[in-house]
Amino acid sequence: MKVNGTHFRTVWFEKGKLHLIEQRRLPYAFEIVQPHTWQDTAEAIRNMTVRGAGAIGATGGFGMAQAFLSAPEKTFLSSLKEAAAGLRATRPTAQNLFYGISRVLTAGLASIGLTEDSLREHLGGLTEVEVKLARDAALAEAQSVADEDAHACARIGEAGEPLIPENGRVSTHCNAGWLAFVDWGSAISPVYQAVRAGKQVKVWVDETRPRGQGARLTAWELMQEGIPFELLTDGMCASLMLRGLVDLVIVGSDRIASNGDVANKIGTYPLALAAHAAGVPFYVAAPSSTIDPHCPSGIHIPIEHRDPDEVLWIEGLDREGKLTQVQVSPRGTLAHNPAFDVTPAKYIQGIITEFGIVPASTSGIETVLSRKAP
Amino acid sequence: MKVNGTHFRTVWFEKGKLHLIEQRRLPYAFEIVQPHTWQDTAEAIRNMTVRGAGAIGATGGFGMAQAFLSAPEKTFLSSLKEAAAGLRATRPTAQNLFYGISRVLTAGLASIGLTEDSLREHLGGLTEVEVKLARDAALAEAQSVADEDAHACARIGEAGEPLIPENGRVSTHCNAGWLAFVDWGSAISPVYQAVRAGKQVKVWVDETRPRGQGARLTAWELMQEGIPFELLTDGMCASLMLRGLVDLVIVGSDRIASNGDVANKIGTYPLALAAHAAGVPFYVAAPSSTIDPHCPSGIHIPIEHRDPDEVLWIEGLDREGKLTQVQVSPRGTLAHNPAFDVTPAKYIQGIITEFGIVPASTSGIETVLSRKAP
Repeated sequence: MKVNGTHFRTVWFEKGKLHLIEQRRLPYAFEIVQPHTWQDTAEAIRNMTVRGAGAIGATGGFGMAQAFLSAPEKTFLSSLKEAAAGLRATRPTAQNLFYGISRVLTAGLASIGLTEDSLREHLGGLTEVEVKLARDAALAEAQSVADEDAHACARIGEAGEPLIPENGRVSTHCNAGWLAFVDWGSAISPVYQAVRAGKQVKVWVDETRPRGQGARLTAWELMQEGIPFELLTDGMCASLMLRGLVDLVIVGSDRIASNGDVANKIGTYPLALAAHAAGVPFYVAAPSSTIDPHCPSGIHIPIEHRDPDEVLWIEGLDREGKLTQVQVSPRGTLAHNPAFDVTPAKYIQGIITEFGIVPASTSGIETVLSRKAP
Repeated sequence: MKVNGTHFRTVWFEKGKLHLIEQRRLPYAFEIVQPHTWQDTAEAIRNMTVRGAGAIGATGGFGMAQAFLSAPEKTFLSSLKEAAAGLRATRPTAQNLFYGISRVLTAGLASIGLTEDSLREHLGGLTEVEVKLARDAALAEAQSVADEDAHACARIGEAGEPLIPENGRVSTHCNAGWLAFVDWGSAISPVYQAVRAGKQVKVWVDETRPRGQGARLTAWELMQEGIPFELLTDGMCASLMLRGLVDLVIVGSDRIASNGDVANKIGTYPLALAAHAAGVPFYVAAPSSTIDPHCPSGIHIPIEHRDPDEVLWIEGLDREGKLTQVQVSPRGTLAHNPAFDVTPAKYIQGIITEFGIVPASTSGIETVLSRKAP
């Protein structure tokens, strides 16, 4: 997508260096950061310099590639083992992160006849040739993970576009636009395609407390693309649906269980309940990399709990235009901060994937996985 | 209730002057303001210096009494007509406001053999004796409205207290504590009574965007009373309910239709849907003055739309402790700001009134109205 007319991905590797859009500074400043080591990259994922399912999946893949590139020959395998563990420990919920790391680790090791199980054994050092092979394979795979994410998201847009009527009013939660992926996004990709197809579309953007990804990121993205939207607080859309002001809901996902239950940003589940109660179709848009085939249902998805200060303090520009944090509750207030919730499959009209729209059910998920299989 | 150990009501008339707690300054400062004229009082209601169903009901009543006290003898009735219209035009949704104004206007006029219909006629001036009679009656009635509100809220607490189990975890939205009424509050009154009865109770407090009445007012109230609570953003409680962390929900109301549909702060309806989906009992606590017997159902309740800046700007203390507003979305963002939503009666387990707990239904509402009738 374009920023002030120039095409950008959220995550890219160029001239030996990883580049990330610094998402914590948006919409107030557009900056690119370059984490130099896999440790820097892990920190960028953890502190949400980069966030969003596909974006952290690609970043995790590039972080793993950085580990291959920097691991000393003598301790090559143990270094990779440490890096994989370190990258995986950054955030617990988004499946794409684990997918990206594993894809790169597996490909790099496979190029020299090893598997991830090999890391458990105390193997001796590798030859210089083997290390070179593994490094090349890992970096190529990381690039593939990123390219596939961008491609899948474009396909999601094409698959979802027909759902949006002329003059359609689409509700969304959090940011599942291009900033959350490598390009295009998941939930907003059908909106971008509908607008390119000449439709008038309006987006209802939930602000998405506590971190405000809707107010900060989705609002900024839609402004860049000139797409009309109105901001809502998170409790508003339910009654708008009852009043007939919403045609459909599309949200992203951080992990999809094999029965079709969907983890996404906190506040998604009550939005799904409201859509269900009002008869408004509720869709989840996600690439197949978001599916966790080993997770039988939503209750098995680990939910990240973040710092209560994210609830207690809000950041924005003050009247003088200075970036400022303000405390919204009396000093000493305790807060609870689960970052995700799980929407049961029964409230989901369909899952929009790069292979088309499938039901949120075991058979729907199996359909996607079978098309994905090589 | 007590503030730093001293008993306060939110609204009181003393030595010829109306006193209000300045609720826009809480929790950062505790100040009392004195609107001198009915116009000042109308402005205090409109700008939310005083807010909450019962509190603006009592304030509206005292504002009407101020109009009786200040109306010139020669234009007594036309001045009252103007004041009633001005006070009623401040905020459209809360029934208690109209109830308080009408009670005082009716009582003042009745004392001299007139009705509100008399204001439509072009009557001549009144005698000095008549004016004195009307003024005394109006002020006495305004005091009664306030006293009855405090009394009804205490009874609501007693009626609702048995619903709260030992170690109960109660969810609430917005502020329906004592700050929202003259004393005690509606939704929080059962919590106060349960704590006085020796029960351990924990409250889940929705922050209640956009104006943050949960984060600012309910949090402050519960701190003053030493009752444990945790703050949530508005999208969080739904998944807490699914995880078995909530025993019941109690919210207040701004208007109850005669079929049991309930208008309350925006975000209440999705909370009710979530409670329904999780099998958590959802109660509304409100004095009978919140019932609008002329309103057949929720779709007939007028919903106030407020300034979009309430969504786009958030107020709090910055790192230096200075009260500051910050803009949470890119400049130029449009926002939508309905202040209330309507929860259909079918999602409400019961309405806790000063006459006990009744079903949210036509017969339940009729039961309350019949007990209220003189």
